[in-house]
Amino acid sequence: MKKYDVIIIGGGPSGIITGATGKKQNPDKSFLMIKEEEKGLVPCGIPYVFHDLKEVSQNAMGPKPFIDAGGELLVDKVVKIDKENKTLSTQKGAEFQYDKLVFATGSEPSIPTFIQGYDLEGVEYILKSFNYIESLKQKTDRAENIVVIGGGFIGVEVAEQLAKFTSKTVSLVEMEKYCLYRAFSEDVAARVDTVIRSTNIKLFTNNKVQEILQNNGKVKAVLLGDGTEIKADLVIASIGYKPCTGLAREFGFQINENSAIVVDRYMRTNVEDVFAVGDCSSTIGFITGDSDSVMLASTATAEARILGYNLFHINLLRSFQGTLAVFSTEINNVTFASAGAIEQTAHNANINYIVGKFEDVDRHPGTLPGTSKLFVKLIVSPQNGAIIGGEICGGKSAGELINVIGLAIQKRVTIYELISYQIGTHPLLTTAPTKYVLIKAAENAMSKIK
Amino acid sequence: MKKYDVIIIGGGPSGIITGATGKKQNPDKSFLMIKEEEKGLVPCGIPYVFHDLKEVSQNAMGPKPFIDAGGELLVDKVVKIDKENKTLSTQKGAEFQYDKLVFATGSEPSIPTFIQGYDLEGVEYILKSFNYIESLKQKTDRAENIVVIGGGFIGVEVAEQLAKFTSKTVSLVEMEKYCLYRAFSEDVAARVDTVIRSTNIKLFTNNKVQEILQNNGKVKAVLLGDGTEIKADLVIASIGYKPCTGLAREFGFQINENSAIVVDRYMRTNVEDVFAVGDCSSTIGFITGDSDSVMLASTATAEARILGYNLFHINLLRSFQGTLAVFSTEINNVTFASAGAIEQTAHNANINYIVGKFEDVDRHPGTLPGTSKLFVKLIVSPQNGAIIGGEICGGKSAGELINVIGLAIQKRVTIYELISYQIGTHPLLTTAPTKYVLIKAAENAMSKIK
Repeated sequence: MKKYDVIIIGGGPSGIITGATGKKQNPDKSFLMIKEEEKGLVPCGIPYVFHDLKEVSQNAMGPKPFIDAGGELLVDKVVKIDKENKTLSTQKGAEFQYDKLVFATGSEPSIPTFIQGYDLEGVEYILKSFNYIESLKQKTDRAENIVVIGGGFIGVEVAEQLAKFTSKTVSLVEMEKYCLYRAFSEDVAARVDTVIRSTNIKLFTNNKVQEILQNNGKVKAVLLGDGTEIKADLVIASIGYKPCTGLAREFGFQINENSAIVVDRYMRTNVEDVFAVGDCSSTIGFITGDSDSVMLASTATAEARILGYNLFHINLLRSFQGTLAVFSTEINNVTFASAGAIEQTAHNANINYIVGKFEDVDRHPGTLPGTSKLFVKLIVSPQNGAIIGGEICGGKSAGELINVIGLAIQKRVTIYELISYQIGTHPLLTTAPTKYVLIKAAENAMSKIK
Repeated sequence: MKKYDVIIIGGGPSGIITGATGKKQNPDKSFLMIKEEEKGLVPCGIPYVFHDLKEVSQNAMGPKPFIDAGGELLVDKVVKIDKENKTLSTQKGAEFQYDKLVFATGSEPSIPTFIQGYDLEGVEYILKSFNYIESLKQKTDRAENIVVIGGGFIGVEVAEQLAKFTSKTVSLVEMEKYCLYRAFSEDVAARVDTVIRSTNIKLFTNNKVQEILQNNGKVKAVLLGDGTEIKADLVIASIGYKPCTGLAREFGFQINENSAIVVDRYMRTNVEDVFAVGDCSSTIGFITGDSDSVMLASTATAEARILGYNLFHINLLRSFQGTLAVFSTEINNVTFASAGAIEQTAHNANINYIVGKFEDVDRHPGTLPGTSKLFVKLIVSPQNGAIIGGEICGGKSAGELINVIGLAIQKRVTIYELISYQIGTHPLLTTAPTKYVLIKAAENAMSKIK
């Protein structure tokens, strides 16, 4: 039986980065990655294959960084794990011994089994599988009336892309008051909806899907709770993702209430020498210390770097306790981004907070071509002025501006410090130095503490 | 004689922000701003009036935030200061008493008196004056052969804008090996030159101006050190700026070797109750602790906020000692940005450093429309891994990405911390999470320390 020092199950971003980082740190150790499909996809790029990228192959992602570092790849499926003897078996009958085992099994779409008609022909999901998405793209190309169920990031992005085909009628159904309501406070989420309504998307919020209606076993319409019937030849259900942890559960690893494999801050499971990383592993909110459920490639890769450096010893201390979710997206050329706490999460966690806001433009003077409005909101602890969250609505610069806020949160920057910090500005690139949005938002928060 | 609690001399960014911040903090105190011209300009926007902005008035900036906060304005010129009696007199004969006095007198172009012909008709400067720039714009509109002397930020930006008029021949002369060589290390400065050469600008580096040649007292050509003669009907000399500190010098305030008014970290001069802020005041390099000469609106406004909060008492501690210069610009749609130490400054200050680099694209997958290359370089102290500088060459996102680096420097983030930090990524906005440029550059630096 062949033995590897490290076996990684899964070849998404967390598997690739764990493998590439770990192998570079430990060139003498042998690494094997076992993944089910040869071709992979950039997970967050999937919505864009439906329009902007034109071809699914444009969004391909393989384990090249891992292979280049000297790792080996096997396309197969792990079906059995023997924790005691540190061995595993695959569907094709291979057996391996391991010293360290890493679950990087990712996540899969939640299936809305509670909606009648969820299993009809014409009801699809955004599964992170190359072949599945290629087939789904062909279906969307043919479809005329598409209903997307779920106004989270994936649902909104897929709907936005499909609505760029003006020949199609695209509807989006969200049960909450606003789309993206888990990532943005009410005022920013309201802006999200305004932007969505400015596209060709027909948006139904505050509305549940009652039933998916059929004609000879095929989807014909979606019936909403308020009685609205939306004609449909294709339904894409995007109501969330759940960790792929069937294998881990079956072979005795500890699983939490969100179906995630329980890990500590060095990604260690309850079994020695076994780790879990990325969407399949548990996360802890950085403010509350409570278990939460963040599934983002950026979070997964941060965890994977920590694991990659620390597979054999704790080499690189984890510098930030807990998971900071940093979200960003672009809808109809407007960027929305958030990091850390939003008003709802702070409120629900019983955290005392104040809000600092500022709105300006992202060029100066604002008469320059390409200028967008830029709105920044900071969530601040009034006790010490620590920044615990931020939200942005603006142009493309918001994509990196949210990382200034993210770094500020992780490094425990207070508004008092931020106000006297030095920033870089340029007419063609940023707000004016006299009213740089982050600093003005910090000043606004400070004025509320006094 | 009318008395004001605070009198500010100058109405540029530092005067406006000192006044607006100070008045908001002290609504019961009376504030007067004395400035020489009614209309002001966004200083860093000046190059763009020559092409992109079309009209000089599009780049106007007035003291509105200060007036809105309740400050008073006088268009006049201070000609005399009596430190002992705390009074001043103006050109128009007004006299005022003050409790606190603020120099915010800014900077003016250095005149190349060492070049024969510097005073000919047709030799102009980038003076921060509305009326002067309006007149200069008319001259550039008429000129056919323009020579810009000096490849610093202003010279490069003015040349880039003028070269957008394809009917004009625009030449740029820089005596150093590369343009922007004070803000970028050699490898990045070389990229700057490559981009400049991709425009219609004729670039002459490593070349001094020997003489400005005339025809009946008017400019006709520029003669370079290597004998090249460049035909010219307009010369714009942009060889740097110097603090406007004649008034302060005349009335006994301490001036340093760079002609700047000497201040401490709360912008206090050597005379009690008198402050200086912005380009006219001295700066201290954050790494070396030595006096340097940074003149940037972003630095000026950071100082102005510190002063505004602390005019009457130290209310808000200065959170970062020394001046961090953060530069950014865009040349022919390529963004260049730097923060803190570059290789030359680190070398000259005898600082031990290592470099971490990474290059990728600013979208993921890179097949998305609008993708630019993105190169990041970090300057790192090998002893503790602290980030002391960074440089970027990329698309527009570099304008805020440099502020992530700037915050990291100011908050003393190490590469070890950065590697496990969580960042936000999105296909349309950033590098991929698997190879986010900052983290990869930090990893590259770390690999050199081991």
